Amino acid sequence: MSELASNTTDNLATTPSEGKHLRIPGTPEMAAPAALDNPKADQAALDDLERHLYAHRYALSGIMTYSSTIDPPKSSRDSAEAMAILEQEDHELLCSEETGALLDRLQAHSELLTPMQLAQVKVLRRSRAQLVDVPANEQADFTRLTSEAYNVWLRAKTADDWAPFEPYMDRIVNSMRTIAGYKNAEKDPYDVWLDEFEHGTSRAFYDAFFTQVKDVVVPLLADVMKSERQPSRRPLEGKFDTQRQWALARDIMELEGLDKDVMLLLETEHPFTDALTTNYGIIASHVHEDNVISNIYSMLHEGGHALYETGVNPDFNYTSLKGGTSMGMHESQSRFFENYVGRSEEYAPHLLRAMRKHFPGQMNRVTARQLYLIANRAEPSLIRTEADELTYPLHVLIRYEIEQLLMSGEATAADIPGLWADRYKAYLGVRVPGAAKGALQDMHWSQGMIGYFPTYAFGSAIGAQLRAAMIRQGMDFSGLLADGNLAPIREWLRVNIWQYGRSKDSDELIKNACGEAFSATYFTDYLVKKYSTIYGL
Amino acid sequence: MSELASNTTDNLATTPSEGKHLRIPGTPEMAAPAALDNPKADQAALDDLERHLYAHRYALSGIMTYSSTIDPPKSSRDSAEAMAILEQEDHELLCSEETGALLDRLQAHSELLTPMQLAQVKVLRRSRAQLVDVPANEQADFTRLTSEAYNVWLRAKTADDWAPFEPYMDRIVNSMRTIAGYKNAEKDPYDVWLDEFEHGTSRAFYDAFFTQVKDVVVPLLADVMKSERQPSRRPLEGKFDTQRQWALARDIMELEGLDKDVMLLLETEHPFTDALTTNYGIIASHVHEDNVISNIYSMLHEGGHALYETGVNPDFNYTSLKGGTSMGMHESQSRFFENYVGRSEEYAPHLLRAMRKHFPGQMNRVTARQLYLIANRAEPSLIRTEADELTYPLHVLIRYEIEQLLMSGEATAADIPGLWADRYKAYLGVRVPGAAKGALQDMHWSQGMIGYFPTYAFGSAIGAQLRAAMIRQGMDFSGLLADGNLAPIREWLRVNIWQYGRSKDSDELIKNACGEAFSATYFTDYLVKKYSTIYGL
Repeated sequence: MSELASNTTDNLATTPSEGKHLRIPGTPEMAAPAALDNPKADQAALDDLERHLYAHRYALSGIMTYSSTIDPPKSSRDSAEAMAILEQEDHELLCSEETGALLDRLQAHSELLTPMQLAQVKVLRRSRAQLVDVPANEQADFTRLTSEAYNVWLRAKTADDWAPFEPYMDRIVNSMRTIAGYKNAEKDPYDVWLDEFEHGTSRAFYDAFFTQVKDVVVPLLADVMKSERQPSRRPLEGKFDTQRQWALARDIMELEGLDKDVMLLLETEHPFTDALTTNYGIIASHVHEDNVISNIYSMLHEGGHALYETGVNPDFNYTSLKGGTSMGMHESQSRFFENYVGRSEEYAPHLLRAMRKHFPGQMNRVTARQLYLIANRAEPSLIRTEADELTYPLHVLIRYEIEQLLMSGEATAADIPGLWADRYKAYLGVRVPGAAKGALQDMHWSQGMIGYFPTYAFGSAIGAQLRAAMIRQGMDFSGLLADGNLAPIREWLRVNIWQYGRSKDSDELIKNACGEAFSATYFTDYLVKKYSTIYGL
Repeated sequence: MSELASNTTDNLATTPSEGKHLRIPGTPEMAAPAALDNPKADQAALDDLERHLYAHRYALSGIMTYSSTIDPPKSSRDSAEAMAILEQEDHELLCSEETGALLDRLQAHSELLTPMQLAQVKVLRRSRAQLVDVPANEQADFTRLTSEAYNVWLRAKTADDWAPFEPYMDRIVNSMRTIAGYKNAEKDPYDVWLDEFEHGTSRAFYDAFFTQVKDVVVPLLADVMKSERQPSRRPLEGKFDTQRQWALARDIMELEGLDKDVMLLLETEHPFTDALTTNYGIIASHVHEDNVISNIYSMLHEGGHALYETGVNPDFNYTSLKGGTSMGMHESQSRFFENYVGRSEEYAPHLLRAMRKHFPGQMNRVTARQLYLIANRAEPSLIRTEADELTYPLHVLIRYEIEQLLMSGEATAADIPGLWADRYKAYLGVRVPGAAKGALQDMHWSQGMIGYFPTYAFGSAIGAQLRAAMIRQGMDFSGLLADGNLAPIREWLRVNIWQYGRSKDSDELIKNACGEAFSATYFTDYLVKKYSTIYGL
């Protein structure tokens, strides 16, 4: 950072007229000759920029992860402060005029760049464009706010009380509306955030998507509810020792194909995954004594995220190309392993074997068929993360609708519990008993992730399309699951998706992998087929 | 960081002649008028500087701590890279001409500063002086080297094989000699590092100190070895379940008076303590199934460090005044709780009670007197961290002597195993069976901490002097220990030592607390009295 800055200082001190050219607004092309004079220096400056960003983001991701897993309770304000400052530095570095001019020069002479550098410049320019008009202090305040809000959310959830979180929610919404205005004053604020979490999406896109999904899911769910074939949960009821559940969680990671030498497993309230590099994946999870199924599918879900993150081309580690390309694509990978692998009938025996190892007494009389049916029991429920595949998109739709009202200003935080209860009644027919099982169940809003939820449903649909493409391309998907041989599936995903990191966008990856643009039909077809079979419709 | 840099850029662009004044070497006073013009701006710049340093150090301490505790094995190169870059940024920020000029201006107008700001400027100027002549890339390479070396050390220790670590040791010594030359070319390189770990010390100081200690300890140990009163270890032999030992470790933290809401306990190979702020202390420890005593005294030792770090004035959190003032003072606190509290006969019943809670079957027949005697059994041994109080300074002396040979170039890494074996034979009469129980037992050298070991013995001696001062000032030290009431002892240390953080140097703290300068006589007197009593000499 300061190397870039001090170079410029030297330029100004010794050759002020050259220095001034860099600062004429709207004329980035004036700086281009520097690239012609010394393209190697610009490429070295790109490397240097990336390494500074890497170090900041390594630190930031780590601090963020530890803050909700291992940090002692009283440290939250201090970790928030450190994050806010590091993020501010990151922001200032990316948004500096020098960085802007550098990226413009590199872009103007893209013929001199390697494909990897070209992708770096694309991603950096896009990240910069998303930030450059947001004042650094506004961004830093937002980081402080969301760090604090996480802890308030956690306490509010524990207390099953919306009230303490309500003012934070309002502040987060206001802050996100303000920041969206800085990013793009012309655009609807919610559209700004939808596009940021998933490049290329908008309310228009999701409205169409959810309409297609709802038109299939709502009648299908009605038929399921009328069916008399509802599987019993009884075979998996009872208490499952939490220490053993953690050992089981580790085995699930191994079964899924994660390298234990790059993975850290931590405990948290709301499961999540991050990776500092391809050599350092982190899954933070939660086990419930009375719900071993939740553990299995949370781990498969988070493991899918971790496979993606650690499967990126390792050459991208110290660059902006590391990590998944978008939230939707990320969720497509997590829900791929959770659902298309983990909730398949073929794979059930492998999960059962892992469960029997840790709970022989409790699991020996459970059959693979029973496990499969319990894991796919469709029914209206309260908790998104534990919902079946069929009702899941409705949980997401409810959040999507409430987010629209918040971001448009039609509702405030005080309205959320009521909106939540009304919609859960309308779409799922369930009564919400309190905030912990209602609007406080997810940590996302506390983290300023308004606009993230829709990517979960979108990701499920991408996953279904990828699965269909594998099969169309000749993979014996069902046979591999039956053999417990996930390696060819991982390899297909690595080659088609993971390795590219952020160097290609979702739409490009989908087109290259599937030979066509995104379509939600694979998802709806899959749901119809699966649930009709299970429920004999 | 970039805020400071860009202010200067603006100055240079608009008022080049003023800007140039800042750059005339050797005339920092030329910049003073700026402080007169706008002292508030300089004070704000000091705050800003401190906050950036805080964030970097928070990140760096965290990454360093996690790298030897929870990080997955394959991530070590990536965490080292992130640390090297962050440290380089920290270095560049502290060593920039702007920071130098700012600190000079503040110093020149110290009458405008609060006592806290004055201390900040003192500490920052000293830190800067230690770094300013070290090239940033040299420092960053050193960070990378020591991060890598830690992992090599760990593997070498596990394999009980000096060979893989040997080239790293040579590189570390060479690097530390080179860096010492940058810091102060006039001074002996080992003296440079001794002074850095403990302000005001040198070979001359430690030579005198160790001579005084050796003159007492060597004959005393000879008498002890001739005594027939050697306590038996048998009452505490056997296997102690490691899970329960971790629960016991937590209880020891509580017994010592640490706030569990600010503490994180992690597992590592070689115990250490750090604190990111007064609200975030970290103890990393190790339990051995066959050595519960090691657990007790490691925890008391690390807990002493943690009490110091978390007992600093919380106003210092986001400044360079946070943390302990020197390694020697730090060790005085750790060894205070380990030895002057933990190895006292009066406190033994309280430790026994904690042990009985977790190991009722094994501990119910052990008496407090037996525990006291086992914890104070003096005998020549191989492992420094498990040595009794009497032989401990000899373990340190051996390292001190070898470090001198390495730093003077009279020995290289290849000589270490031989030197180690010879000196352990000469001073302690024991045969070193291999590197794991020899020169690889401590991680310090792998971390570039050559010059640190002597502070352990110095710290023990400071601790003895503080204890004597408490008693002289009327504290019923013995009675408080017997009551298990450590609060007044903690409060004395908090008021006299902890609260000041780095704002006062060791010598000033000792003088203020004890009413006199440092003297090793309290330490030697204590050893003579204690061991004469136990062994009936």
